[in-house]
Amino acid sequence: MDVELLRAFLEDVQSGDLDIDDAMRRLRTLPYEDVGFAKLDNHRHLRSGFPEVVFCQGKTTPHIIEILKRLSCSNKCILATRAGQDVYDAVCEEISDATYNALARIITVGEPHRSDQDVAADSEYVAVVCAGTADIPVAEEAVVTARVLGSRIERAYDIGVAGLHRLLDQKEMLADANVVVVVAGMEGALASVVGGLVDRPVIAVPTSVGYGASFGGLAALLSMLNSCAVGVSVVNIDNGFGAGYLAHMINKGRQV
Amino acid sequence: MDVELLRAFLEDVQSGDLDIDDAMRRLRTLPYEDVGFAKLDNHRHLRSGFPEVVFCQGKTTPHIIEILKRLSCSNKCILATRAGQDVYDAVCEEISDATYNALARIITVGEPHRSDQDVAADSEYVAVVCAGTADIPVAEEAVVTARVLGSRIERAYDIGVAGLHRLLDQKEMLADANVVVVVAGMEGALASVVGGLVDRPVIAVPTSVGYGASFGGLAALLSMLNSCAVGVSVVNIDNGFGAGYLAHMINKGRQV
Amino acid sequence: MDVELLRAFLEDVQSGDLDIDDAMRRLRTLPYEDVGFAKLDNHRHLRSGFPEVVFCQGKTTPHIIEILKRLSCSNKCILATRAGQDVYDAVCEEISDATYNALARIITVGEPHRSDQDVAADSEYVAVVCAGTADIPVAEEAVVTARVLGSRIERAYDIGVAGLHRLLDQKEMLADANVVVVVAGMEGALASVVGGLVDRPVIAVPTSVGYGASFGGLAALLSMLNSCAVGVSVVNIDNGFGAGYLAHMINKGRQV
Amino acid sequence: MDVELLRAFLEDVQSGDLDIDDAMRRLRTLPYEDVGFAKLDNHRHLRSGFPEVVFCQGKTTPHIIEILKRLSCSNKCILATRAGQDVYDAVCEEISDATYNALARIITVGEPHRSDQDVAADSEYVAVVCAGTADIPVAEEAVVTARVLGSRIERAYDIGVAGLHRLLDQKEMLADANVVVVVAGMEGALASVVGGLVDRPVIAVPTSVGYGASFGGLAALLSMLNSCAVGVSVVNIDNGFGAGYLAHMINKGRQV
Amino acid sequence: MDVELLRAFLEDVQSGDLDIDDAMRRLRTLPYEDVGFAKLDNHRHLRSGFPEVVFCQGKTTPHIIEILKRLSCSNKCILATRAGQDVYDAVCEEISDATYNALARIITVGEPHRSDQDVAADSEYVAVVCAGTADIPVAEEAVVTARVLGSRIERAYDIGVAGLHRLLDQKEMLADANVVVVVAGMEGALASVVGGLVDRPVIAVPTSVGYGASFGGLAALLSMLNSCAVGVSVVNIDNGFGAGYLAHMINKGRQV
Amino acid sequence: MDVELLRAFLEDVQSGDLDIDDAMRRLRTLPYEDVGFAKLDNHRHLRSGFPEVVFCQGKTTPHIIEILKRLSCSNKCILATRAGQDVYDAVCEEISDATYNALARIITVGEPHRSDQDVAADSEYVAVVCAGTADIPVAEEAVVTARVLGSRIERAYDIGVAGLHRLLDQKEMLADANVVVVVAGMEGALASVVGGLVDRPVIAVPTSVGYGASFGGLAALLSMLNSCAVGVSVVNIDNGFGAGYLAHMINKGRQV
Amino acid sequence: MDVELLRAFLEDVQSGDLDIDDAMRRLRTLPYEDVGFAKLDNHRHLRSGFPEVVFCQGKTTPHIIEILKRLSCSNKCILATRAGQDVYDAVCEEISDATYNALARIITVGEPHRSDQDVAADSEYVAVVCAGTADIPVAEEAVVTARVLGSRIERAYDIGVAGLHRLLDQKEMLADANVVVVVAGMEGALASVVGGLVDRPVIAVPTSVGYGASFGGLAALLSMLNSCAVGVSVVNIDNGFGAGYLAHMINKGRQV
Amino acid sequence: MDVELLRAFLEDVQSGDLDIDDAMRRLRTLPYEDVGFAKLDNHRHLRSGFPEVVFCQGKTTPHIIEILKRLSCSNKCILATRAGQDVYDAVCEEISDATYNALARIITVGEPHRSDQDVAADSEYVAVVCAGTADIPVAEEAVVTARVLGSRIERAYDIGVAGLHRLLDQKEMLADANVVVVVAGMEGALASVVGGLVDRPVIAVPTSVGYGASFGGLAALLSMLNSCAVGVSVVNIDNGFGAGYLAHMINKGRQV
Repeated sequence: MDVELLRAFLEDVQSGDLDIDDAMRRLRTLPYEDVGFAKLDNHRHLRSGFPEVVFCQGKTTPHIIEILKRLSCSNKCILATRAGQDVYDAVCEEISDATYNALARIITVGEPHRSDQDVAADSEYVAVVCAGTADIPVAEEAVVTARVLGSRIERAYDIGVAGLHRLLDQKEMLADANVVVVVAGMEGALASVVGGLVDRPVIAVPTSVGYGASFGGLAALLSMLNSCAVGVSVVNIDNGFGAGYLAHMINKGRQV
Repeated sequence: MDVELLRAFLEDVQSGDLDIDDAMRRLRTLPYEDVGFAKLDNHRHLRSGFPEVVFCQGKTTPHIIEILKRLSCSNKCILATRAGQDVYDAVCEEISDATYNALARIITVGEPHRSDQDVAADSEYVAVVCAGTADIPVAEEAVVTARVLGSRIERAYDIGVAGLHRLLDQKEMLADANVVVVVAGMEGALASVVGGLVDRPVIAVPTSVGYGASFGGLAALLSMLNSCAVGVSVVNIDNGFGAGYLAHMINKGRQV
Repeated sequence: MDVELLRAFLEDVQSGDLDIDDAMRRLRTLPYEDVGFAKLDNHRHLRSGFPEVVFCQGKTTPHIIEILKRLSCSNKCILATRAGQDVYDAVCEEISDATYNALARIITVGEPHRSDQDVAADSEYVAVVCAGTADIPVAEEAVVTARVLGSRIERAYDIGVAGLHRLLDQKEMLADANVVVVVAGMEGALASVVGGLVDRPVIAVPTSVGYGASFGGLAALLSMLNSCAVGVSVVNIDNGFGAGYLAHMINKGRQV
Repeated sequence: MDVELLRAFLEDVQSGDLDIDDAMRRLRTLPYEDVGFAKLDNHRHLRSGFPEVVFCQGKTTPHIIEILKRLSCSNKCILATRAGQDVYDAVCEEISDATYNALARIITVGEPHRSDQDVAADSEYVAVVCAGTADIPVAEEAVVTARVLGSRIERAYDIGVAGLHRLLDQKEMLADANVVVVVAGMEGALASVVGGLVDRPVIAVPTSVGYGASFGGLAALLSMLNSCAVGVSVVNIDNGFGAGYLAHMINKGRQV
Repeated sequence: MDVELLRAFLEDVQSGDLDIDDAMRRLRTLPYEDVGFAKLDNHRHLRSGFPEVVFCQGKTTPHIIEILKRLSCSNKCILATRAGQDVYDAVCEEISDATYNALARIITVGEPHRSDQDVAADSEYVAVVCAGTADIPVAEEAVVTARVLGSRIERAYDIGVAGLHRLLDQKEMLADANVVVVVAGMEGALASVVGGLVDRPVIAVPTSVGYGASFGGLAALLSMLNSCAVGVSVVNIDNGFGAGYLAHMINKGRQV
Repeated sequence: MDVELLRAFLEDVQSGDLDIDDAMRRLRTLPYEDVGFAKLDNHRHLRSGFPEVVFCQGKTTPHIIEILKRLSCSNKCILATRAGQDVYDAVCEEISDATYNALARIITVGEPHRSDQDVAADSEYVAVVCAGTADIPVAEEAVVTARVLGSRIERAYDIGVAGLHRLLDQKEMLADANVVVVVAGMEGALASVVGGLVDRPVIAVPTSVGYGASFGGLAALLSMLNSCAVGVSVVNIDNGFGAGYLAHMINKGRQV
Repeated sequence: MDVELLRAFLEDVQSGDLDIDDAMRRLRTLPYEDVGFAKLDNHRHLRSGFPEVVFCQGKTTPHIIEILKRLSCSNKCILATRAGQDVYDAVCEEISDATYNALARIITVGEPHRSDQDVAADSEYVAVVCAGTADIPVAEEAVVTARVLGSRIERAYDIGVAGLHRLLDQKEMLADANVVVVVAGMEGALASVVGGLVDRPVIAVPTSVGYGASFGGLAALLSMLNSCAVGVSVVNIDNGFGAGYLAHMINKGRQV
Repeated sequence: MDVELLRAFLEDVQSGDLDIDDAMRRLRTLPYEDVGFAKLDNHRHLRSGFPEVVFCQGKTTPHIIEILKRLSCSNKCILATRAGQDVYDAVCEEISDATYNALARIITVGEPHRSDQDVAADSEYVAVVCAGTADIPVAEEAVVTARVLGSRIERAYDIGVAGLHRLLDQKEMLADANVVVVVAGMEGALASVVGGLVDRPVIAVPTSVGYGASFGGLAALLSMLNSCAVGVSVVNIDNGFGAGYLAHMINKGRQV
């Protein structure tokens, strides 16, 4: 349940527009609503100020729709990650204000808290960079996540270390960022090189891009965990969402 | 080379206290000094505001001493991590202002930038917690690192998830921290549970504490990478230094 | 061969309703019946009091049907696990009293030994909990197995450690169970946390739910094996059947 | 804090033998006592009826002694596992009623809750078996743990599957046990074979006994996790303590 | 080139039925025939007395047919392993005397060296056993291979260790075999148990049958390599052909 | 941008055929052209004399076509590796001078720098050998790559170590090569044996050909890394392109 | 109990030299003798004709001596493998007829069944070859084992594939062997090359010789399991004893 | 046997200074000398022009000395790698012209083929670079090997990617090298970055330098195998010798 929705709710009770019995029924779903197959965490937004997020992979489409519908009653903005086009098509038929970013595979229900103008005016930003074009979907997952949460983003894609001049051209943009998300598959060396160029936190996202001895992203993962640069930490393979979320946390500090 | 030392150096040149030839000789070592077996990065402090750090593991004691002596010419505070008692004993004979934290295995040469009083007055702090008593050395490495860099620290040790009440007693301290370092071996579950309790970045440090199928910390590492909580990122096994450094970066934001 | 069917068989011999030659032919299949591609263990029920179980994965549908038909001659209740909808459809055409639980992917032929009323009246029960909605199929496999064997079950789903309040709400239900089955993928931390809350055996079932460095359930498996809580043991990844079977064994004690 | 000690404590308060201030001071340590490097869980016994257990591996000897002294104030019996002879020698100088089982590497402080006569009279028991003589230390860790907790134990050692007649000679003893702990290294096949012989829970303990492709117990661990027999669950490599603890839980049921 | 075909060839040269030029052309393909994409080993049969074998997996169907046609010019019997039904259908259209064993996925071109009557009269035989019905395809690959090479086979399927009585019923058949092939997935314990029952070589074939922590047959493979029984050696996962070939070598000794 | 194209460009500027503004626009794309999803490295040819290479795996077909079109503006020859037939079909519709090697899965746009006659006249050459017919696609990827770059190639396929005479027949061809590319799956032993026969660099390419414990090429990879022969180095599993590229570098020396 | 000793025993009973009570006491130890920490398999020799073998690794020296003393009562020849010099020194003080092969680390108590003259006269033999000098200890373990069991041995050491001429010089010796044991570390390629040269069973023994990516023998193990040659099977890393035992079984056939 | 020594030998025969019998005895050791525990490859130098190399790890000191003495009869220069100080001390007592490089752990017996002046005059050279000071021993092993074989070397140490300016300062030296050896532990990113800067072969040597998830060099190994730069191949972990040998092969081309 959203802070603003909650305030409106309490004002309705105060004014008598909402009678006690109805109010009670709505409050019963706090702190979470049990829908049998899931327990929806309605007051997370109250605690964290962040919208609710639904991880779609491994869930049936009917379950996803049901969860989104319930959450949209009490949240102004919801993210659904790892959602295929088919899931989005089904969601659209039931929920009117859903939009889809096909590259990032994210459905957004409702409007982000901050408008595009607001965000563009920020001096502080999250940089999201990736090594090759095949890493772009994971990078975009981070971009969409951090943007919906309220951060300004600067991107630089296809700047892998084999052509160092492409990376060095981005040196200033990287140095001025509050936090850098580095997305790379294969040998994942970009994280260490960026870590050596900036003095801000680097969130490294290994991707499963590669073949043979990349073993589904293991090579990049181990490489990033062993980075010789300071300030680098790592999230799960292909976890663009997690990186974007954490980047926003760091970018915005406690004033979230 | 330290910002303050650099300013003093330039004023000496301006005033004529330092003649051009001597000034030239000192400047030649910028941006790094090549001592054959190592290239010392003297202007890192200029760039990052952080002291220089020497990773002792795998280096011979004479090399360590040589590096520390050179760095101490142009840095007010240096950290030497993964240093055994024998290394410290040898360092002491050559360098007068070295102190040692045996638990964290860190030698500090010189004084931290900020005094204990200054730091204690901070409202913002880094929380460092660990699951069991065997994890304490790694936790202390994080504590000493972040403290020397200038952050206030709050500790809570031995709060593993098997006795949840010990953890829940620390809930407020954790929630008020700017960033939480979670150090845990065995199954590493503490990272996820703390990640669910706070809305700030959690830096997870898997340790090699455990036996059998912990495979030297692999179990905790994989567990933390797969955390179901948001805001959790991971550093290398037993890498307390890396976690402390990153935690300070996040805690202090851009005003470092 | 079922205890009751055996008794009836012997009474038929005694009364002369079954002549010696026919009796001999039926007894020849004891202790197991060799059908060429399989050796059916007919007297397991005599020994253990449990129904026969057929593991369908890796068997052809005709083989499964043949085995079920043979077993149903001498068993009142048979379980067929890891059976897809297509297997069930084929079974239905040949065997009349087969029912199907699609979520658990289990076919039941015949009636469980104990009726629903009987089971509901038990004070002792098995708790089956899971971390996320994607873990439900494995959890249901455990539920159906233990229920058909004769145990009362209490469920609590979607109580992963990232939202600890959802788990703590189930504390009493868990504490009063005779044994708890914990089903979790990703980092599998739920097993340790539940293990710390109860003083009864916890059977941990890692699932292949997750991505990237979960490596098909390996992360959860290692996590559970290294649990810092006492009383936790582990079964194979996604092995809901094994957990349900063992849970019933523990729940019922020797009076099975 | 022990149930009986707690009752005595309350009676002392009631009778006035203990004044309120002293009582308050003692109660402050509930539910756990914070000694800086550890948080001692004093009311675990109250909850579980089991003695407190100290895992010595990875702890310094002074820490172990300090913990044992504190715990012995409020517990009648304490186990210290993975304790070397040197630890025991140091403990003996400070704590009078400590005894040591060198094979199991367990120190016991105080007396087990149940006397040897009591235990010997039990009809129910835990069977502990192992495959080879090199597995005996792990088996004995399970034996001592379950015995101190209050279970009767029957042992059968060196009954590996390469000489099946040695195992089959123990068939009745195994079949009459309430629960069987199977300790085996190398290929760990004993767990499956025992699992096929009995209809009670089997707790499999892989050991690091073996060489080459046993990879420190990994071969036995995987083997046991993939057991084709029902009723088998697995604990960590060499975790005799965990197996003994769980075996006692199952043996005694809820009447612990 | 077959021994008998070679003798006939030389007699034709002697008698003048084959002129020198034609003879030269045929001899040029010795010791192998280079067909561009493959080098066919025509004199292997001369050396080893065994028919030529074509491993179909990873080869295109046209390549397989081309190879079979060339080899059939100079060999009386050829095996093609890992051949799907589609490959066989295509082969049939081009090669008249091909037969197919669908379970074993083996195509045989020509007739085995020894007739069924001959083989049945042997007192010496290879025993091929497997643990579960899902292991049968691999077992049959071994059976067909050894049979075509000229060995008598005795089978016993579905005798996994969880039902030891099924295995013990085969004890005499196993003890009288010259060599035993043991095919098992999951935990692969059958190899050790059979190894303990017989005093002849045991060839263990791990299969990829299983799920979760069987990791595609790794669990069974490691289990078999660590067998506590003597006389056990191991071939690659699912390598029924290799086991059957080696079993025949051992069964027939040097008189092959 | 190609050396010859660059010279022509400058002459056009000198002669006035190209006005300054147009020249500026073209030069802006140096050193690389940013097309949003990719940064095309136009001056690589200037630096290295090698054509540009596009790795198609993981890229969408529209992206591949866009990249090829842009690159063909300023490069006379481009390679596109890991391209399926469907990609080639789509490329053909947009780019006229593309040719395809289906076995090697490589699209070539434009003409190689050196003609077939030129190359055939070289005394120096790269030998490319493989162990089995299933390794041929990877070997051909190396062949096409090195050939397009300008090296003469000699092939020997299907010369695995199990039939040593086939390999020894190639001994002279191997000994006279400037560098040998060895492509092998399964146990990868061919690399060591060839390494022992020649005194020139051997580039070993493990392939994913095999089954069971080959674990997708891991067995061959480890085998090659541990080669007992000197002069052997290894590239990624199935990386025929990398081997061909490196082989050409070594073959041609600095006069490339 | 030895066949000859058993016959003597029965004759003593028949003649009355041994009274019934004493005979009973001796027979009670059949089929094995339980000495508490071990169950000695006295009738193995009766069954298999092979001497008893004690695996010393992981056993205490007193246990080893006790076991050897007991076994020597009823066996004419006993092997103790993996015995260090210190174990042998201790054994010597208690058992008079023990001899030691330091390279193979094997203690032999008593005399082998067949004399050196007998064995040397055999036309059939086991060939034992190894790749490098560091593999010799494992090779010698195989040699001593097979020799004591009664096989003639031919050795060829240091014939690794990097110098193929050294191996080809042994071609005839290898081809005439009944079975070949191939011992190799590093990449283990020798097994495949030998397998291609001979038409008899090859027992491959990977060794832990190597460094880096040999991962303790894993590289050689995987290489050998994936051998492209037929007739190759594999035993555990460094398991020279197992290979020697199996080689003797195959060499002698059923007439053991 | 050295080319020059061989020529002298033949001239001695021609001149009668060496009689036929003595000449025969010396020639008998060609192509290799069998000393029982080893087969010394005397004509390798004839074939390759390179000195003989002895890998000391895993060999006893007496064996090493024996081998060096034999080889020094017919070779002017021998390398012994992985030799500890104790081995060198023992060698010195028996062989007069041995020298030792303690950092590289290499003993050289005799004089390199080319003098220091000769080598220094080369325009072509091998660059050897390493990431950190702890990688220096492996780098020096490569340096000494390539230098003794006859290549000029340029070094650049401690140029890890975290301080990119240190690496970029070496850009010209790297670009002008004929081949670059890159030695790096931890995440091994240096190989990719150097590979992107130069257009010559890069030989990547992963080292076991690192901790935690470096898993003994596995992280660097996988990273280097997955390098996104072309021209990079990899040798075994810590294999400085192999890299130096291969680098010399490439540097000198066929005119070795």
